[in-house]
Amino acid sequence: MKFLTYRLNEKFGVGILHGTEQFFDLGQDPSLPTDMIALIAGGDQTLSRVRKVVTQAGADSLQALSSIEIVAPIPRPSKNVFCVGRNYRGHIIEGARARGIEVNFPAVPEFFTKPVTSIVGPEAGIRRYQSLTSQLDYEVELAVVIGRKTRDVSVEQALSSVWGYTIINEISARDLQRAHGQWFKGKGLDTFCPMGPWIVTADEFGNPEGHRLSLTVNGGVRQASTTTDLLFSVAEIISHLSAGLTLEPGDIIATGTPSGVALGMSPQAWLEIDDVVAAEIDGIGVLRNRVIP
Amino acid sequence: MKFLTYRLNEKFGVGILHGTEQFFDLGQDPSLPTDMIALIAGGDQTLSRVRKVVTQAGADSLQALSSIEIVAPIPRPSKNVFCVGRNYRGHIIEGARARGIEVNFPAVPEFFTKPVTSIVGPEAGIRRYQSLTSQLDYEVELAVVIGRKTRDVSVEQALSSVWGYTIINEISARDLQRAHGQWFKGKGLDTFCPMGPWIVTADEFGNPEGHRLSLTVNGGVRQASTTTDLLFSVAEIISHLSAGLTLEPGDIIATGTPSGVALGMSPQAWLEIDDVVAAEIDGIGVLRNRVIP
Repeated sequence: MKFLTYRLNEKFGVGILHGTEQFFDLGQDPSLPTDMIALIAGGDQTLSRVRKVVTQAGADSLQALSSIEIVAPIPRPSKNVFCVGRNYRGHIIEGARARGIEVNFPAVPEFFTKPVTSIVGPEAGIRRYQSLTSQLDYEVELAVVIGRKTRDVSVEQALSSVWGYTIINEISARDLQRAHGQWFKGKGLDTFCPMGPWIVTADEFGNPEGHRLSLTVNGGVRQASTTTDLLFSVAEIISHLSAGLTLEPGDIIATGTPSGVALGMSPQAWLEIDDVVAAEIDGIGVLRNRVIP
Repeated sequence: MKFLTYRLNEKFGVGILHGTEQFFDLGQDPSLPTDMIALIAGGDQTLSRVRKVVTQAGADSLQALSSIEIVAPIPRPSKNVFCVGRNYRGHIIEGARARGIEVNFPAVPEFFTKPVTSIVGPEAGIRRYQSLTSQLDYEVELAVVIGRKTRDVSVEQALSSVWGYTIINEISARDLQRAHGQWFKGKGLDTFCPMGPWIVTADEFGNPEGHRLSLTVNGGVRQASTTTDLLFSVAEIISHLSAGLTLEPGDIIATGTPSGVALGMSPQAWLEIDDVVAAEIDGIGVLRNRVIP
């Protein structure tokens, strides 16, 4: 199943995608949660109930996607988004080359975070921040949504904590990222975390390896790879992150980006106002955003 | 005023410290907020109302501090705690020396975060994590609590966004911090963010410069400095951080630590089980925690 969060008349709700043009609003059944984090925290039991209600519902219970605004599937997580840096070989090499430093591959995942205030949904604007940066960059990333309280989980058991998957376009101001030493500031500005368009449940997404992911700018392909190329797999990331650190339902982990970012290009083709960036992952969909002033 | 959050019979409440042994429970007056973030978001108007109620209250409305468990003043912020690394000259020098690298001073603040799951209160245990780290370290830090929505604020205006101040003992596993490249993981484990014992309002704390801060381990002084030695002042930190990044009521910013951490000692005296760490800042109080298995 694919779950989306929508806004209609300043009210938020949760729906299930049906085909490509319609959705089922969970709000129709008072026994179902109307908030994505509550839905996730409800676990398998809640998912089964949702499945039952939807199966029994008639075609007249579906609504047009065009009638709502789809927002980020978790518009306001209860903590920052966890991120892994440098997790595809090609991206590590292009990054080192662009900075004129020696290539080295991390022995363990490099974690940082993006604040909840940086999250925006599909079709929302990514701010250009002309006075703050001249190096606005994109990164298509597979994002994992955690389904249950998890700590010290083994690699073998790690995928059982996953509720679903979505797409994050992990936006960076490369000059700020470098100047501030740690990566947080250059990756943490408002609108720097487009997310969506929905969460695909783990059972539907299947093995997180083997999914093609790509990103285009104004239709031109910039990034194209597969999640098989992840240096640290989804299971390894969760196991490393959860060592001594409690993960909770609704936590989000962005797993890193393949090569092809603007930083690695020659010449470097940074994002500019009116550029349209489309991040796509097979089995999820397309997350499209425009750069705005 | 000094505001604390307490737990009594699994219920949380907010109180005002009275002297050193007593407090006034805001829950006595149904018109007052009983949650620290709501209190903060209420701004000056709520603070005035609190002041009025407390002034009119009789001595019989006070309760003994010994009757409650004081927890972190904001036990669960709505996002990660913002932190500034390398913000005192002496600490920058000792850190570079310990790692055998050249000393360089940051041109802009280095921001990272600690997850909300790392927060614990005064007297709570700091976990030793013997299987994960052999380099457990402490850092006394002045922490700023933001009072209003703030973005792109100038250095001159920055202090007007501050609601109050508290103490954070910014715990690190130095080996993890180094191995994971970015600092998040080595500073993000559960119990790695002792906070408290309470928040002192900005009007009572006064100028954030000129406050002595110190840290002892089992009574022996390890860190002793003053906030005047901050490389980036509180106002500069807020101004830098808020550039393009919205700060919200209840956000917490730890401002960095002076020299004297275990990493910089020779030999390096890491924290071990049963050590008692006391972090003190003039005008706030003492935040005391014990290292547990």
